[in-house]
Amino acid sequence: MSSRYPQSVSILDVGPRDGLQNEKQTVTTANKIALVEGLAAAGVRRIETGSFVSPKWVPQMADSADVFAGMQRQEGVIYSALTPNMKGLENAMAAGADEVAVFGAASESFSQKNINCSIRESLARFAPVMQAATDNGLRVRGYVSCVMGCPYEGDIAPQAVADVSQQLRDMGCYEISLGDTIGTGTAYQTNKMLEAVSRVLPLDAMAVHFHDTYGQALANLLIALEHGVPTIDAAIAGLGGCPYAKGASGNVATEDVLYMLNGLGIRTGIDMDKLLDATQAISDVLGRAPVSKAAQAMLAKR
Amino acid sequence: MSSRYPQSVSILDVGPRDGLQNEKQTVTTANKIALVEGLAAAGVRRIETGSFVSPKWVPQMADSADVFAGMQRQEGVIYSALTPNMKGLENAMAAGADEVAVFGAASESFSQKNINCSIRESLARFAPVMQAATDNGLRVRGYVSCVMGCPYEGDIAPQAVADVSQQLRDMGCYEISLGDTIGTGTAYQTNKMLEAVSRVLPLDAMAVHFHDTYGQALANLLIALEHGVPTIDAAIAGLGGCPYAKGASGNVATEDVLYMLNGLGIRTGIDMDKLLDATQAISDVLGRAPVSKAAQAMLAKR
Repeated sequence: MSSRYPQSVSILDVGPRDGLQNEKQTVTTANKIALVEGLAAAGVRRIETGSFVSPKWVPQMADSADVFAGMQRQEGVIYSALTPNMKGLENAMAAGADEVAVFGAASESFSQKNINCSIRESLARFAPVMQAATDNGLRVRGYVSCVMGCPYEGDIAPQAVADVSQQLRDMGCYEISLGDTIGTGTAYQTNKMLEAVSRVLPLDAMAVHFHDTYGQALANLLIALEHGVPTIDAAIAGLGGCPYAKGASGNVATEDVLYMLNGLGIRTGIDMDKLLDATQAISDVLGRAPVSKAAQAMLAKR
Repeated sequence: MSSRYPQSVSILDVGPRDGLQNEKQTVTTANKIALVEGLAAAGVRRIETGSFVSPKWVPQMADSADVFAGMQRQEGVIYSALTPNMKGLENAMAAGADEVAVFGAASESFSQKNINCSIRESLARFAPVMQAATDNGLRVRGYVSCVMGCPYEGDIAPQAVADVSQQLRDMGCYEISLGDTIGTGTAYQTNKMLEAVSRVLPLDAMAVHFHDTYGQALANLLIALEHGVPTIDAAIAGLGGCPYAKGASGNVATEDVLYMLNGLGIRTGIDMDKLLDATQAISDVLGRAPVSKAAQAMLAKR
């Protein structure tokens, strides 16, 4: 076992955005607000709260401004939003987002099929967003999708991930979140991918965003911890599914990650018991058990 | 990432026994036989086929002799059985089991509550079974339960695991399967436990048997692979539940383990596609999706 694990890890909960966006059910604004507030109450210090994108594309996020307006903010918590274009950025700033995020793919086919342009073009389109965000003192996070596999291309070369990561960093992103969008990555690939990316990014600019579609997320996160990656994206209750494998699971569950980190003695500042209160609440809203084995086992004992 | 991973790993599928024994539904003898044959057809070379125990205790395993009698055997496959006492051993030998297994707990309270005697007494009771098995040229496997946590005591000292492992080995068990019965173990504990056990057992006598109740099994298995443990117990479709946390999952799923091992380039001899045929078949029998994220994702694409 590695002795290089970080002493503390920052968990960014993407449940209210990446999670709920990929749930079939629509969740009311009030319940979204309760979710965000529940996460903050549990000690989560980074919450992906919404997305400012055309409601034609993503109807589930049409009320992001209302969520920002209605929620009680807690000091020290960063409430972030996805902003795919200038209009989105303006709306995010108006809503009071603390941080925004842009995205690029490590797979050319994914970029073409998903947003109908090349990786290079997609990054160029973000340039004015980056500029405006920076001018307004907003930090920008960059997401890279398909870092270990693509639904169209299959395996992705680690160097392709490093290249797009470096470009996002050069454009001004302070942190790059490396997304295993379809959850096909394994420990070996995780290691190779992180080796390549760590040659172009400083450690404190690296975050991992793993989906648990093939059940590999925690094993892969263990490899990321060995590399010293300080930030992990996860979704409470494992919210969100996988659009590329019907019925399969998406984001790794925050509870499972927290359980592992607690076991390793890695500090997160999150209180498991309070987190489970929020897990129970959103599970009641959705009318189903959380997609988190740790949460299921712990809630079964309540 | 460690470079000490073994080049090949032997997977022992415990689905037909540890799995089905802990399922609520009763499965017909014919369907059990189909399951065992499906596993063998996929290349699984060790199959825990049944248990010879009083049907009053474990009604789900009352037809183990019929399973042994009815199944088509494949050369090179070891069909094993759990034998808690002399009568069980005699029945297992009559049925033609290739290997038998006895068990002890690493937790004194678990032993008392589960089989109503101390660990020491429980091992003494197995002595005649061990002797008779050895006299008849049968290899005996030893299971140790509660190696990382006990439903009554909580955490278990690694040395307690090492002690009972050594005693089972001294009694003649050729292999000790280290069971995280309630699935509460984390990577840190796995490492400490394996450090302690590897001081008393040679590597080739060690097997790990992890439950995925808290979602930690694959991460913990990665630690076991770092230690070079050559044998992993798993259950197809994640069969079996956890009697200590209602609704929670039990055995780590063979498909999830195989997916990880394949990714690491570790050989098992198992064909994923044929394994998924067996997964689909037993899931149809049980009328529910497999408790394996990898299986769910791969079957969704069929």
